[in-house]
Parts: sequence; C-alpha cells; structure tokens
Amino acid sequence: MKIYGDMISGNCLKVKYTADLLGIPYEWVEADVLKGDSRTPDYLAKNPQGQVPMIELDDGRTLAQSNAIIRYLARGSRLLPDDAFAAAKVDEWLFWEQYSHEPYIAVCRFHHKYLGKPFNELDGWRVERGNAALDLMEDALEGKDWLTDSGFTLADIALLAYTQFAHEGGFSLEGRANVKAWVDRCHAEIGIS
Amino acid sequence: MKIYGDMISGNCLKVKYTADLLGIPYEWVEADVLKGDSRTPDYLAKNPQGQVPMIELDDGRTLAQSNAIIRYLARGSRLLPDDAFAAAKVDEWLFWEQYSHEPYIAVCRFHHKYLGKPFNELDGWRVERGNAALDLMEDALEGKDWLTDSGFTLADIALLAYTQFAHEGGFSLEGRANVKAWVDRCHAEIGIS
Repeated sequence: MKIYGDMISGNCLKVKYTADLLGIPYEWVEADVLKGDSRTPDYLAKNPQGQVPMIELDDGRTLAQSNAIIRYLARGSRLLPDDAFAAAKVDEWLFWEQYSHEPYIAVCRFHHKYLGKPFNELDGWRVERGNAALDLMEDALEGKDWLTDSGFTLADIALLAYTQFAHEGGFSLEGRANVKAWVDRCHAEIGIS
Repeated sequence: MKIYGDMISGNCLKVKYTADLLGIPYEWVEADVLKGDSRTPDYLAKNPQGQVPMIELDDGRTLAQSNAIIRYLARGSRLLPDDAFAAAKVDEWLFWEQYSHEPYIAVCRFHHKYLGKPFNELDGWRVERGNAALDLMEDALEGKDWLTDSGFTLADIALLAYTQFAHEGGFSLEGRANVKAWVDRCHAEIGIS
C-alpha cells in the first residue's frame, strides 16, 4: 500500500498513526500540497477530489478522505469497536471532526502558519467556532480518558490530528486541562514524545 | 426509535429517507432549528453538539451526525455494501459531502432561503466551492447511474439531501445533465414524485 500524504497535514498524520499502530506496512509518498502535488493530472486521475491523504492498494484501487481511510484500515482492530452502536459513536466524532473542528482549527493553522496571515487577521467566525469545538471536547472529556466509552479509538486519532497543533492556529489549551491531558495520553498511546 | 429532525434540513431528510427505505419504524420529533429547539438544555443534555438530526433508541441511547446515523441504521442492508472496500468508497462520499459539499450548497441555501440574504450577497467563496462540488459530481456520474459501483447506496442518499435543493441556494443543475438525471433516479428510488 502507498499513502500519499503531506507531513504538515493532520489529516495525513491520522493515516500514518493508524497504519503505524496496527503494523500495516506502507510506502509514504510525500505530496506537497503547497506545491500543488495533489492537483497534477496524474494525481487527479487517481483522486478527482484533489486532496491528501489518499491510499493506493497494491492492486491499484484508491481511497481518499482521511476518516474513510482510517476506518477502512482499522476494520476489525482494537481501534474500531465491533459493536455497531459503539462504532457509530466513533463515527459521530469522525463526522463532527470534519464539519465542526477541522474547518476552524486546521484552517486557522493553515492560514497563519503556511499562508502567513497574522493571528489578528484570521477569520473571526473561524476563531469563534474553533474555540467552541475545543470547549465541547473539554466538556466531553470531563472524567474520561478517551472521547468514547470504547477506550482509545479512531475518534481520538481523528481529533488529535489537529488539536495537537491548535496553538499553531492561535488557539490555546490553557484552561482546557482535560484536552491537554488527553493530548498527552494520545501521544503516549501513539508513541510520540 | 425517535428521530429528532427539522424537515427543512437535508441532513435530517437523509435519516428519514434511510429509515423509510429500510422499513425501520420511528417517531419523528420535529425540532425547529430556527426557533432554537436544538439548543435547549434538554436537547443539549442528549446531544451536546446541539445539532439535528439525532436519534434516540428505545433504551435512551442517542446518536448524532446525519451520516453516522444513516450508516448505523443501514448496517447489513442493501444501502451499505458488505465488502469492506466497497463500504469505504461509500464512506469516501459521506465524508466528502460533509466537508466539500454541505458547507457550500446547504449553507448558501440556508443564508438565502431562511436568513433572507439575496443571491448576489452570498459568500463568493462558498458559491465557487459549491459549483466545484456540483462539477465534481457531474464528472463522477459520467456514464454511471450511481455515485459508487455498488448500486444505490447511502452515498447517493447523503449527496441527494442538499443537491436536490441546490437551486434554493442559487446553484443550477442546467448544464449538469448527469447530476440532474441522477437526482431523478434517486427520487424514483426513494419514491419522491
């Protein structure tokens, strides 16, 4: 399997973390989004959505969308519960991440760190919703080690992806002790020091 | 099972369509988003994300996020392939819908139809990305009846939800013959005349 990804992208790191944790062998193909590597004709032929990450199986079949990929890779593993409802509660976080977290936390980081926009010129509504997302996580983690009741799962991997870099988008985990401790727990689980 | 939903919301209609197609009995609890029904303390206690739709099982357990819900309801049915990779290709569309389609097509509709913003005052970047999303669907449906190779699935239901109302956000399906014919096919499948 090949993973096409950009190491600056949290979405791509989700796939790397999942494959590494499950011991799935892969070749990492670095695709530099800032240089347009995901918009070349060759890339678009494999993934018309023009986004990273993407995986390419040994038989040539391709799959895009970070959370669809990790869900596929983790099937039958400890990272995705067997029980249908428990798996659905993981899915609930995966979809929430893409709609209510990534567009704010990740996009503010991208605008500041990679496009050079000063913190005070970031979109106010994105900052506001990013803070609301972190607050929701803080509440969800009250008295809990992980986001779902199924231990460390894909839900934690998907939310860790950009939460760990929230400060790079101008967000702060100070005053969000639950999130901060959870980031550390996730890092320990994944083996990031 | 109770479905908490707002009939003006495509996200909620996904759940209705799926339950109806599979013959799953439910009680529809209308939650008027414009009146704040999804932000009351009672609602937030059940769904801290404060969004519709949500389902509540007979034992009181709740699940939010439209695509997580339909995925849960459709497990083991003809709407979600058994094969893991084929199911992942459905997931690919579900996640793409929430990140690259809904925030443009549905939000423009909401701003125009429900908040009263004139078409020419809609966010230009949302209009641009909405059109790009419809163009991608047009290409994906070239020579194909459905979005994936597994027949009519949750991918079609999820994308139908707001594509069928695209005109209400100022988008046009004229010149997008594949999408237009596919909307008609979806409606026939669901029994919408």
